Amino acid sequence: MPDTLTTIVHAVHALRQRTPLVQCITNQVVPQVTANVLLAAGAAPAMVDTPEEAADFAAVASGVLVNTGSPTAAQYVAMREAVRGATDAHTPWVLDPVACGGPAARTGFCRDIVTHGPAAVRANASEVIALEGGTPGGGRGVDSTDEVDAALDAARALADRTGGVVAVSGAQDLVVSHGRTSRLNSGDPLLQLVIGTGCSLGALTAAYLGAARATPGELTDHDAVLAAHAHVGAAGTLAARDADGGGRGPGSFAVAWLDALHTVAADPSLITDLVAVEETGR
Amino acid sequence: MPDTLTTIVHAVHALRQRTPLVQCITNQVVPQVTANVLLAAGAAPAMVDTPEEAADFAAVASGVLVNTGSPTAAQYVAMREAVRGATDAHTPWVLDPVACGGPAARTGFCRDIVTHGPAAVRANASEVIALEGGTPGGGRGVDSTDEVDAALDAARALADRTGGVVAVSGAQDLVVSHGRTSRLNSGDPLLQLVIGTGCSLGALTAAYLGAARATPGELTDHDAVLAAHAHVGAAGTLAARDADGGGRGPGSFAVAWLDALHTVAADPSLITDLVAVEETGR
Amino acid sequence: MPDTLTTIVHAVHALRQRTPLVQCITNQVVPQVTANVLLAAGAAPAMVDTPEEAADFAAVASGVLVNTGSPTAAQYVAMREAVRGATDAHTPWVLDPVACGGPAARTGFCRDIVTHGPAAVRANASEVIALEGGTPGGGRGVDSTDEVDAALDAARALADRTGGVVAVSGAQDLVVSHGRTSRLNSGDPLLQLVIGTGCSLGALTAAYLGAARATPGELTDHDAVLAAHAHVGAAGTLAARDADGGGRGPGSFAVAWLDALHTVAADPSLITDLVAVEETGR
Repeated sequence: MPDTLTTIVHAVHALRQRTPLVQCITNQVVPQVTANVLLAAGAAPAMVDTPEEAADFAAVASGVLVNTGSPTAAQYVAMREAVRGATDAHTPWVLDPVACGGPAARTGFCRDIVTHGPAAVRANASEVIALEGGTPGGGRGVDSTDEVDAALDAARALADRTGGVVAVSGAQDLVVSHGRTSRLNSGDPLLQLVIGTGCSLGALTAAYLGAARATPGELTDHDAVLAAHAHVGAAGTLAARDADGGGRGPGSFAVAWLDALHTVAADPSLITDLVAVEETGR
Repeated sequence: MPDTLTTIVHAVHALRQRTPLVQCITNQVVPQVTANVLLAAGAAPAMVDTPEEAADFAAVASGVLVNTGSPTAAQYVAMREAVRGATDAHTPWVLDPVACGGPAARTGFCRDIVTHGPAAVRANASEVIALEGGTPGGGRGVDSTDEVDAALDAARALADRTGGVVAVSGAQDLVVSHGRTSRLNSGDPLLQLVIGTGCSLGALTAAYLGAARATPGELTDHDAVLAAHAHVGAAGTLAARDADGGGRGPGSFAVAWLDALHTVAADPSLITDLVAVEETGR
Repeated sequence: MPDTLTTIVHAVHALRQRTPLVQCITNQVVPQVTANVLLAAGAAPAMVDTPEEAADFAAVASGVLVNTGSPTAAQYVAMREAVRGATDAHTPWVLDPVACGGPAARTGFCRDIVTHGPAAVRANASEVIALEGGTPGGGRGVDSTDEVDAALDAARALADRTGGVVAVSGAQDLVVSHGRTSRLNSGDPLLQLVIGTGCSLGALTAAYLGAARATPGELTDHDAVLAAHAHVGAAGTLAARDADGGGRGPGSFAVAWLDALHTVAADPSLITDLVAVEETGR
């Protein structure tokens, strides 16, 4: 789909020009890698996640990430405050409902907060199914291609219900909004062996939404979400390709992936060779 | 001791086949490296450490890590909850009593929680001595070979008292259980200059215990603890060896070590050339 | 200024000999990179930041870092406790007033805690201006050379008021104390794309102050703060230079920078070729 790829390349340019500031309320495991991903890709991180500061900051941020990966009591409050501040200021926010479908309190929180109008939900297939009240099959959070397709109906229902974009990340990424379904092929299996690649993608999604909202009429939210996934996936493909004769492990792959995020930001047209997109009207 | 090495290689195969899910309650410094170590080595991380979720999750995890490296008030509660949940569900749990012998409240907590039956304690020599009520000598937490030997009596007493395995990590690792004492030579001094190598080893110990318990009759808890240390140490040796002409610093060593953890998982027989074990009946 | 460079080289030797233990109360994003920086540079980290332990530990630490990057309610208490313990024990402490001038509560905290006598303040230009009650210009925290100069008056006023050293970090670093102003040229723009390089510099500043206080009469606090900046900057220059034909991205730069911190610690005289200093009486 050459038109979609052209739009994605345009979005990467827009990100670079805007350097959107992303407020991240995220889990304890990934703040460092998330910040490094945002910096490498051309955005700016701010991990403002206390109840006192979350709402005010959401009003000045370009985008907000709400990730439920290791929710302390204070973070639950901060997430609600950030959503309140973002809503009042029309700042786009992204829900990454980590482990929705697992612990009951977390599932309940995710199902409630998603009714407050996230610009996008980014999740794996199990989490999207659980958000829609379903019971995901086996597995412990690692998506397969089949699982992405298994979440198609739930993703469409969720997108209609929230009025936003729903991205189901996996070996193939599925991006759904009202009347539009896109499938993205990119990345590398080693991304699964580096912690925080998915969580960082959530943060980068908020960055792209911020850049898109700053250029109204040029980029839709759906385009922005697709561009975030394409940027991360293209960098994954590039990092794997860059291995000298193969045999790269997860440590050096993670380093090469950060380099590649920066390379793609500097030359967005690289994406056209590293990513494949399929569009269906619905 | 070829028999022990054969058993270790078998344990690494078992880990890969099972991909045990490890619940980590750990300090604020090391969650990212710990998760990456577990993924590279063939296990799966879950940093579930809130008081609300800790007990329930311990019932479904394959193994649990309790690391006292930076204990918030909420984490103290979560650690007790995780131990309660693990005990009820017969999930093996590992105590890494960071800084036991230092701050009084932390020392008191460690001395109490260790009476609840950890499958293994993994610590440095000073911490093992302090757990047994002794006063460690000088030093600030960095072990030397001598210090490992200095903790032999305390380790044996602790193993007898808990009925579990006690691992004293250092330049040489000492693994003690009722009637068995093993010494492991592996690793590289650069491991001391990378934060989280010891804490990650604690998490990997829980992973190996989970894999061993899933294959009853084949692997003892002692074997599992030894295998975790051998996996980490062999990767350290491999990472140092892999330097081009020497002169690798701690940054590139850390990357190479993650790669090597993955390499060893893919070809466990490598361990036989990278590790030396000595066994004494007691 | 050859004399200043000679003193800096002497300070790096002193750090290596002493391995100062640095208590870090820092934000959630950077503990891992901060610990790795301290280890690579020749110091030792201890992230002791709970209200219960902070004061007692500050009495035994060589230096203390108070970084306000993501202050939880408990951390605010711990920061005050650490300052109290450090003051009682004459342990030098460093204030890194992250986002001072941003959220009101944080700005208020920073303006109050700075009256308690930090041995050094390490900040960017906006934060130094905000600490002195001014309103920084635009920008979101990324310093330019001009901004460093814009903070000169505020830095001098702050240094006179606290009786300590004030370092304004940027492309050029400005180090000010009563009667002395130094300017340091070193580093590389890629340092801005790696999270935690500034926060780690704050921790290393505390390490150098600890080493300087342990060798009274040889090194002033001003020398120590300069040496920390020179060590970090020299490693940045070395890491960028070390790229094979250019084209290094932020991932591999971060790894090379850690290696270079270790290289500089092992051979401090390297600094003389990698750093330029200008001194003015005032």
